[in-house]
Amino acid sequence: MNVIPLTPRNEVVLIRQYRHGIREGTLEIPGGIVEESDTPEHAASRELIEETGYKESEMQLLGSVHPNPAFLTNRCYTFVAKGVSRWKAQEQDEKEDIEVVVKPLGQIPELIRGGEITHALVLAAFYRFYMEYLPGL
Amino acid sequence: MNVIPLTPRNEVVLIRQYRHGIREGTLEIPGGIVEESDTPEHAASRELIEETGYKESEMQLLGSVHPNPAFLTNRCYTFVAKGVSRWKAQEQDEKEDIEVVVKPLGQIPELIRGGEITHALVLAAFYRFYMEYLPGL
Repeated sequence: MNVIPLTPRNEVVLIRQYRHGIREGTLEIPGGIVEESDTPEHAASRELIEETGYKESEMQLLGSVHPNPAFLTNRCYTFVAKGVSRWKAQEQDEKEDIEVVVKPLGQIPELIRGGEITHALVLAAFYRFYMEYLPGL
Repeated sequence: MNVIPLTPRNEVVLIRQYRHGIREGTLEIPGGIVEESDTPEHAASRELIEETGYKESEMQLLGSVHPNPAFLTNRCYTFVAKGVSRWKAQEQDEKEDIEVVVKPLGQIPELIRGGEITHALVLAAFYRFYMEYLPGL
């Protein structure tokens, strides 16, 4: 599951996280595993507040994708969290090192074009997001 | 690497492939591994003709993404293959079972919305593709 957190001023709350695979920091949206005892929507709210300290006023499902249909059965559900605002400090595991980065929504395309946002699941999430707003998509 | 094959009539050459992970057929674009001895562009041309029998008149790089930056170093390069036309029969490995499906470009959004295209890397590829053509993306 992953979630695009949108402030009332049309800013996106992103996280910069060190990724061991590619050995560098990447700009992403909050996300994580949905436990069996949990719903995707509740997991999205929980990860959002844990990773960023922001809380939404409304959570809306955008759709789901298969991250790796050749080998895995899992789906990744994508949400948009509307009307998010700073609620409290982040809750981080000791091994996590997450920096919260707030960017205007209009800058997302240039962050993708410039190679700052490279995570396939984040691009897929923004595709589903823009699909709701841009004609022709 | 994956590649969006576009005919001169603005149709996309898709493939329907059985995926063992999710145990069903998914609608995807051609793609595969880039061998160390190969370039992403050459691999894209080779996979295109092997999986579909179509050949491009021009191959254009759209960008690249990280399929799984938490664990893996690999990048997935995305191309658009312009002016593709039927060149010869598909070359299939015995274990592959790939059906070629040609759809108008304008139907891609509804194939995604309707859950026929669900592969995260395919959505990410179309994001990069539409980015070239739609203002605001």
